[in-house]
Amino acid sequence: MKYIKLFATGGTFDKEFNEINGELFFKETNLYELLDLGRCKLNIKIETLMMIDSLKMSETERNYIVSKCEKEDTHKIIITHGTDTIVETAKILAESINDKTIILTGAMIPIKFGSSDGLFNLGSALSFVQTLDPGIYITMNGRYFHWDNVKKNKKIGAFEKVR
Amino acid sequence: MKYIKLFATGGTFDKEFNEINGELFFKETNLYELLDLGRCKLNIKIETLMMIDSLKMSETERNYIVSKCEKEDTHKIIITHGTDTIVETAKILAESINDKTIILTGAMIPIKFGSSDGLFNLGSALSFVQTLDPGIYITMNGRYFHWDNVKKNKKIGAFEKVR
Amino acid sequence: MKYIKLFATGGTFDKEFNEINGELFFKETNLYELLDLGRCKLNIKIETLMMIDSLKMSETERNYIVSKCEKEDTHKIIITHGTDTIVETAKILAESINDKTIILTGAMIPIKFGSSDGLFNLGSALSFVQTLDPGIYITMNGRYFHWDNVKKNKKIGAFEKVR
Amino acid sequence: MKYIKLFATGGTFDKEFNEINGELFFKETNLYELLDLGRCKLNIKIETLMMIDSLKMSETERNYIVSKCEKEDTHKIIITHGTDTIVETAKILAESINDKTIILTGAMIPIKFGSSDGLFNLGSALSFVQTLDPGIYITMNGRYFHWDNVKKNKKIGAFEKVR
Repeated sequence: MKYIKLFATGGTFDKEFNEINGELFFKETNLYELLDLGRCKLNIKIETLMMIDSLKMSETERNYIVSKCEKEDTHKIIITHGTDTIVETAKILAESINDKTIILTGAMIPIKFGSSDGLFNLGSALSFVQTLDPGIYITMNGRYFHWDNVKKNKKIGAFEKVR
Repeated sequence: MKYIKLFATGGTFDKEFNEINGELFFKETNLYELLDLGRCKLNIKIETLMMIDSLKMSETERNYIVSKCEKEDTHKIIITHGTDTIVETAKILAESINDKTIILTGAMIPIKFGSSDGLFNLGSALSFVQTLDPGIYITMNGRYFHWDNVKKNKKIGAFEKVR
Repeated sequence: MKYIKLFATGGTFDKEFNEINGELFFKETNLYELLDLGRCKLNIKIETLMMIDSLKMSETERNYIVSKCEKEDTHKIIITHGTDTIVETAKILAESINDKTIILTGAMIPIKFGSSDGLFNLGSALSFVQTLDPGIYITMNGRYFHWDNVKKNKKIGAFEKVR
Repeated sequence: MKYIKLFATGGTFDKEFNEINGELFFKETNLYELLDLGRCKLNIKIETLMMIDSLKMSETERNYIVSKCEKEDTHKIIITHGTDTIVETAKILAESINDKTIILTGAMIPIKFGSSDGLFNLGSALSFVQTLDPGIYITMNGRYFHWDNVKKNKKIGAFEKVR
């Protein structure tokens, strides 16, 4: 199997606690240590595209993500992304790319918290990317959704099908 | 989708530290708390079949596992299992069952340890079970193996293909 | 020995991550679970006075804390407190109380984070409160400071002596 | 203040899980990372004397510990030690040394486990060593005991006074 590309863009996944000012912030992606923790034996290349809150993502950032996915020389890509606008980025990807399996995933609780769902979601995304047909998907909470049939239920903090 | 059945049999996955005598032992499965941690939204039924070290598994235990898988009214089953004899159990399952997707998985480090790979492996197994064709598989470290093409490399503590 | 009283007031110590809106917030004190984790065998009574950021503490809250310390029927008291204004609260306590050993402590990283210093600071505070003479102290990072000779160095996020 | 010496001897404190053979073993002391976690600002020197289960400690090891404590150029010493024979080592220390504050401490659960009491006990020991009079003590679970008035209650896994 060719390598799996892992693009980090920030989101809750990679938020950390700044002990000087008491605020949440981004330092670097925690994906390397998660793969170590999972003793992951897959051929994976990690690249950080940005480290931002997905609410702060504009067209510029999304176009950059699309462009990076297009140019990457593999058909299996995972993007870690803030959950608030993850559906929007999935849609823009779907407009341009149809020959790759691209999984967008995130976390409800930062990895640095003891109670994070990040390791679970990463194990899940890495498995779906190997087995799902080409297309754009969002995977969270053990489930996978096609980009055109998913929305975030902000009340309960989970994703669900539109129809 | 129908429910996914999760059978716990013990193994490193569920080993805990007995603070009275300083030894590792089994109490109850930790699968419930892992699913909570992963904020898992899948329809899952957990059942503990046994809580033993896989080196102590005899034909009796394996036959029981096969029998439980046969009778379970779903086509998607995950079994948490000690890694030392997990391949053996997979073989016996393959002799009897061919219409269900059965994933055997485990952990190299107990869930109760901070550095466990259990949550990663569970997220992975739950994803593979939804997407792989009927058959018996072992999934660990982000990878999946067909029952007849996998062995444990005991030197490095990881699974690899036979050929 | 009489009981040790533990007053929770909030601060970084008890901040949690709200997975719905992605912000830090207060739910309930985590002191009970920390004492469990430490297998603490001391006679301790916990009481939550408030759950706020210490930057939001006004004279009203501080007077309430003083009043509760005065009325508590023990000479050994620990207060968990946000670090930003912990010195101020210590001063006000010192104006009114001189016959009790009162320790103010906090955390630089919330308990709910894997990398929290909270358990360390709590073990430390519980030990100092048993052995230090009556007076008002701040304990952090393994050190203890008299209320009138301590300041927070906000650049490095640690406490140090004034002179 | 002069430095505090931290002697590591092994015990449950430093036990780790060997993922190749599934057994508990000793690698190196975890004290450095615990001090980092506690953001400890004390002047501490760590030295590993041995890494063994305290049930395997003979007169040779105990004499070595005594000798190292005698020669160390500070009056404040902490020894991390397996709890099974910690009282015995304390007694031998008391026969030879009376001008230093020596604290023996341990853990009921290895530091590498998520639920360890190690960080709590270390914060506690570092505080007691600064404030207790010269003598030999055992500190666990937030309490301190004089060497000649303590025993381990093996049924509940906690220390208590003899009289």
